[in-house]
Amino acid sequence: MALRIGMIGGGTVGGGVYDLLTRRVSSPLATVSKICVRDLTKPRSFTVDPQTCTMTDKIDDVLNDDTLNCVVEVMGGTGIAKDVVLRALGKGKHVVTANKALIAEHLPEIQAAISSAPGGPSFAYEAAVCGGIPIINTLQTCYEGDVVTSVMGICNGTTNFMLCKMEGGEDYGEVLKEAQDLGFAEADPTADVEGHDVRAKISILAKLAYGVTVPISAIPTKGISSVTSVDFEYAKSMGCTIKLIGTAARTSEHGEHDGPLSVYVAPKMVPITHVMGGIGGAGNAVAVTSENMGMAAYTGPGAGRYPTANSIVADVMRIARGNQGEAFPKSAELELSTDYESAFYIRISISDGLGIIKSVGACAEKSGVSISQILQNTISDREAVDFCVTTEVALLSQVKMMCEELKGLSFVKKEPSYMPIQEKPE
Amino acid sequence: MALRIGMIGGGTVGGGVYDLLTRRVSSPLATVSKICVRDLTKPRSFTVDPQTCTMTDKIDDVLNDDTLNCVVEVMGGTGIAKDVVLRALGKGKHVVTANKALIAEHLPEIQAAISSAPGGPSFAYEAAVCGGIPIINTLQTCYEGDVVTSVMGICNGTTNFMLCKMEGGEDYGEVLKEAQDLGFAEADPTADVEGHDVRAKISILAKLAYGVTVPISAIPTKGISSVTSVDFEYAKSMGCTIKLIGTAARTSEHGEHDGPLSVYVAPKMVPITHVMGGIGGAGNAVAVTSENMGMAAYTGPGAGRYPTANSIVADVMRIARGNQGEAFPKSAELELSTDYESAFYIRISISDGLGIIKSVGACAEKSGVSISQILQNTISDREAVDFCVTTEVALLSQVKMMCEELKGLSFVKKEPSYMPIQEKPE
Repeated sequence: MALRIGMIGGGTVGGGVYDLLTRRVSSPLATVSKICVRDLTKPRSFTVDPQTCTMTDKIDDVLNDDTLNCVVEVMGGTGIAKDVVLRALGKGKHVVTANKALIAEHLPEIQAAISSAPGGPSFAYEAAVCGGIPIINTLQTCYEGDVVTSVMGICNGTTNFMLCKMEGGEDYGEVLKEAQDLGFAEADPTADVEGHDVRAKISILAKLAYGVTVPISAIPTKGISSVTSVDFEYAKSMGCTIKLIGTAARTSEHGEHDGPLSVYVAPKMVPITHVMGGIGGAGNAVAVTSENMGMAAYTGPGAGRYPTANSIVADVMRIARGNQGEAFPKSAELELSTDYESAFYIRISISDGLGIIKSVGACAEKSGVSISQILQNTISDREAVDFCVTTEVALLSQVKMMCEELKGLSFVKKEPSYMPIQEKPE
Repeated sequence: MALRIGMIGGGTVGGGVYDLLTRRVSSPLATVSKICVRDLTKPRSFTVDPQTCTMTDKIDDVLNDDTLNCVVEVMGGTGIAKDVVLRALGKGKHVVTANKALIAEHLPEIQAAISSAPGGPSFAYEAAVCGGIPIINTLQTCYEGDVVTSVMGICNGTTNFMLCKMEGGEDYGEVLKEAQDLGFAEADPTADVEGHDVRAKISILAKLAYGVTVPISAIPTKGISSVTSVDFEYAKSMGCTIKLIGTAARTSEHGEHDGPLSVYVAPKMVPITHVMGGIGGAGNAVAVTSENMGMAAYTGPGAGRYPTANSIVADVMRIARGNQGEAFPKSAELELSTDYESAFYIRISISDGLGIIKSVGACAEKSGVSISQILQNTISDREAVDFCVTTEVALLSQVKMMCEELKGLSFVKKEPSYMPIQEKPE
């Protein structure tokens, strides 16, 4: 079916979509016929052919235009964008969006709108998670005969860029400023550095992998603002690096991955030999472990004009050719656990003295945590020593309890900091 | 459209397909109704439900059965299998195959059969390249608005397993025997170790990425049988490892990737920081570099019952849902070059003496090759010294000429061995 597209949003990504569809694809199957922007007088990074495409600043000019059968939403946000997407579906128009926050926060409403939409339009969102990596399509079409046991992703280029810089020795404050100067990080970087962006994305990946809607409020989320250069020193001595990772994994109640589903976001100690450990700069990666395949990993650019536009164009052309499948898998019943299990790394800041290990051991025992290793780098100041404990597999709640106990000890000078440790790949 | 499937072949992969479709997918959209095997009396690794599926040893029982609308070909080979595929298409049946050799060797005939097939059946072959990695679907659907500049793949698990073992210090002969004992390598390992398997696969990937049919006879192909432990020593000192890689890249005549297409197979020096350098064991990987995306890489299991069956099942379900696109892209005109360009590593075995570098330099100059580095590990026997030369970007023909020149020198004791060096990722 030839698509006549109304695009809402004419910024960086929108310009990329227009450019690729006109200059590269140039197919009668997909024409951008109307573009809605906030301010018609603002200079644009792309030139529209007035013979084939009109500009407007009224969303209704797109939504009420019955000659348009596809809406590409690249305005962002969860307010007006939600209205746009639901109304477009309500009019039976195909919708293509890059809006992960919208999908993560309003999944049930969007699913309801899709299933009641007249004519059964497609809803496609390849660009919403890991910009240029075709992970949505892959999870939609390649795992039907398989059982996914875990999905983990580096889904935020900004924080990966920052962590790579910190690994090189820079401080959190420095690299944040650098990321902002380069335009990677927003003036208000909260969504990136506190893990909210990753949380939205891992909830979408969990839906695709397990058929379960995971409310973002049920996802324990820790960002990178507490990561320090000391953590990178210990990471190095453990053969690891630190990555901000969204994880959605079945727990192993009976030795197999048959327990409740845990979805969480946290900076993780990742072995440098793990595919996730090698992702540099603003790159993204998703690793899917499944019964048929073992681990498969998909890596590529996570954001940027052309990677994101490329995924939107792929969605558009699949719809135009009638090859786009269902947006979401059949709903499954699966218990959710917010208390995930992992081996953990715990950094403890102390003033040095006698009897410390005994006291730490007592805190661990009381919390039901089994200690694996205790590491201490060279001490330069006995009043400010950071050492670390690694644990056997424990529950998040146990580790949090242990950190609370540790906080109460007289020689502990700061709130202890914890991170899960990623298992080595098989 | 509900598929009634006739499967030709009931071995490891066929059993996996039957198992996944009955046990996991269990959808009325896809039923294996008939299986053709060579020997009906042979014990099988899977049990067929006689209520829904009959076994036969006659291919015509499948091909002439008008109630079957899909043939899954998992018998392998390029003789009978070719006949099966062409006749099935001729009868308008969808075809799903894992047979890379068949596709690579008979692509024009298969394309002709697809385009003249009544009813426009699908032809799907996700399992033919890199078993469990969805690289076929990805190249078919994710790069339409993009321009691919290079595709490179570790597409043969057996040789990757062998090279990883050799990196650990074992000899070629030892690891070949080990691979054979483990069932990775055939009794006649030629197709794997001489690169013929990779050659078939890279010709298919080149077709998908560039729209060009590359006859396998036009693909310079070098296997791993000349790789030695000395090469791994030099690789290590260069921050590299050695991987058998199929490459299909546009050459850079004008500083952009706008020159002829080079497709070749060779063991390559690969930086360990490159995604290809980290692929262990029998793993596979494909890295696609394109104008929109930069580099994206897809890694996973390359072979085995369930990874391969999983890809076949994904094809089957896409066809059943009407979501399978065209098998091959529009044909493109693109000049082919069999004389690829790369920086090279050349290992030279000599008896040590004076004036060697001067003579080697003269050979390089005569061949138009510019030398980058000369490396020599610690010498234990002056009569049997291996040293290596790395070159600036040169043509294969120049490097071959240089090796011929070197062979004529009195102090050179063996045929010099060369390998292209993979550029570092950006």
